[in-house]
Amino acid sequence: MSLLSSLKWRYATKKMNGAKVPKEKLDFILDAIQLAPSSFGLQPYTILVIEDQATKEKLTPASWNQPQINACSHLLVFCAWTGVSQEQIDTFIADIATKRGLPLEALNDYKGYITGSAANLTDEQKVIWNAKQVYIALGVALAAAGEVEVDATPMEGFVPAQYDEILGLKEQGLTASVILPLGYRAEGDWLAPLPKVRRDKDLLFKFI
Amino acid sequence: MSLLSSLKWRYATKKMNGAKVPKEKLDFILDAIQLAPSSFGLQPYTILVIEDQATKEKLTPASWNQPQINACSHLLVFCAWTGVSQEQIDTFIADIATKRGLPLEALNDYKGYITGSAANLTDEQKVIWNAKQVYIALGVALAAAGEVEVDATPMEGFVPAQYDEILGLKEQGLTASVILPLGYRAEGDWLAPLPKVRRDKDLLFKFI
Repeated sequence: MSLLSSLKWRYATKKMNGAKVPKEKLDFILDAIQLAPSSFGLQPYTILVIEDQATKEKLTPASWNQPQINACSHLLVFCAWTGVSQEQIDTFIADIATKRGLPLEALNDYKGYITGSAANLTDEQKVIWNAKQVYIALGVALAAAGEVEVDATPMEGFVPAQYDEILGLKEQGLTASVILPLGYRAEGDWLAPLPKVRRDKDLLFKFI
Repeated sequence: MSLLSSLKWRYATKKMNGAKVPKEKLDFILDAIQLAPSSFGLQPYTILVIEDQATKEKLTPASWNQPQINACSHLLVFCAWTGVSQEQIDTFIADIATKRGLPLEALNDYKGYITGSAANLTDEQKVIWNAKQVYIALGVALAAAGEVEVDATPMEGFVPAQYDEILGLKEQGLTASVILPLGYRAEGDWLAPLPKVRRDKDLLFKFI
């Protein structure tokens, strides 16, 4: 489906039917997420892809008991890094050197630039910065899910601290930032037939 | 272009050639941005679409003198609302009522829910929340630009306070959050031939 068609087709599905998203469609969505841009290209996040039903059940009370958690096929939990360490920056630089066939020294300026930018942020600002990058990947994921006609419900309605606890994220230097159940809309979802509401273009855009 | 192809094709263009993006392609990108989802559907942002060359020149020093600002066709400035006021929530609820043909009273619970969520946030947290929604729209904009083969460079490398001042954003309850020059890559952009670097999937994703 073309992007505009899929953005019109998609909606924040409130009731899913439990059907499984086939592997090739899931892979398409994950490939798109992998290609999402981020500040410096750092991709300061990890995405959990939860298919295990017992884990989804454990997360349901931490998600205001919303039924998509259980009835989705795969629950994506977008986790922001809780900081930006020198080790993470060094790993990133080493990855660039390998993939572009460059000597590490050629990237010294770039490394210094990222290190300096991170040093200018408080710990709290680092998490916010990382979380913003997560939201770019979320936007790309929504476009991808629509293209392969998979329903997806972006959700902030969960308790991050409980997710972090249940999934053992803190020990991994991660915190749950936003979640995205993937699956298929059930018959009778109340939201499905309602017209999509978006701000009118003359309010949303200002031309200069 | 399909989404995966366009995500592979696109890159953070460092040198643009000044060519104009035709109206139908710009409209395609703006239509996609308009359709981007956001928390509650509130779309707590305004996007400036700057074609005026004098304005772009004024913004260049506030953008670390990066050449894309002048050489792009249209500069999108994604501005987050600086708060979430009751008036903004009421306007949103009235818009839903109109577009879905519902009496305002039918939306009282939803209105209370949004109002309550906003009341739980400090002023600073509101701006951050709004800015995160901006980044979803940014992700969708990048997918859209790629689909119509328009180059786009997501940039945090600018001074928001200077943008706010130059563009008179504060008085409008807005703050510049992230910018996106749209245009076409110039011959000889150093970044164009380099392989794209992304974290390997076994590091980026964790399957449960």
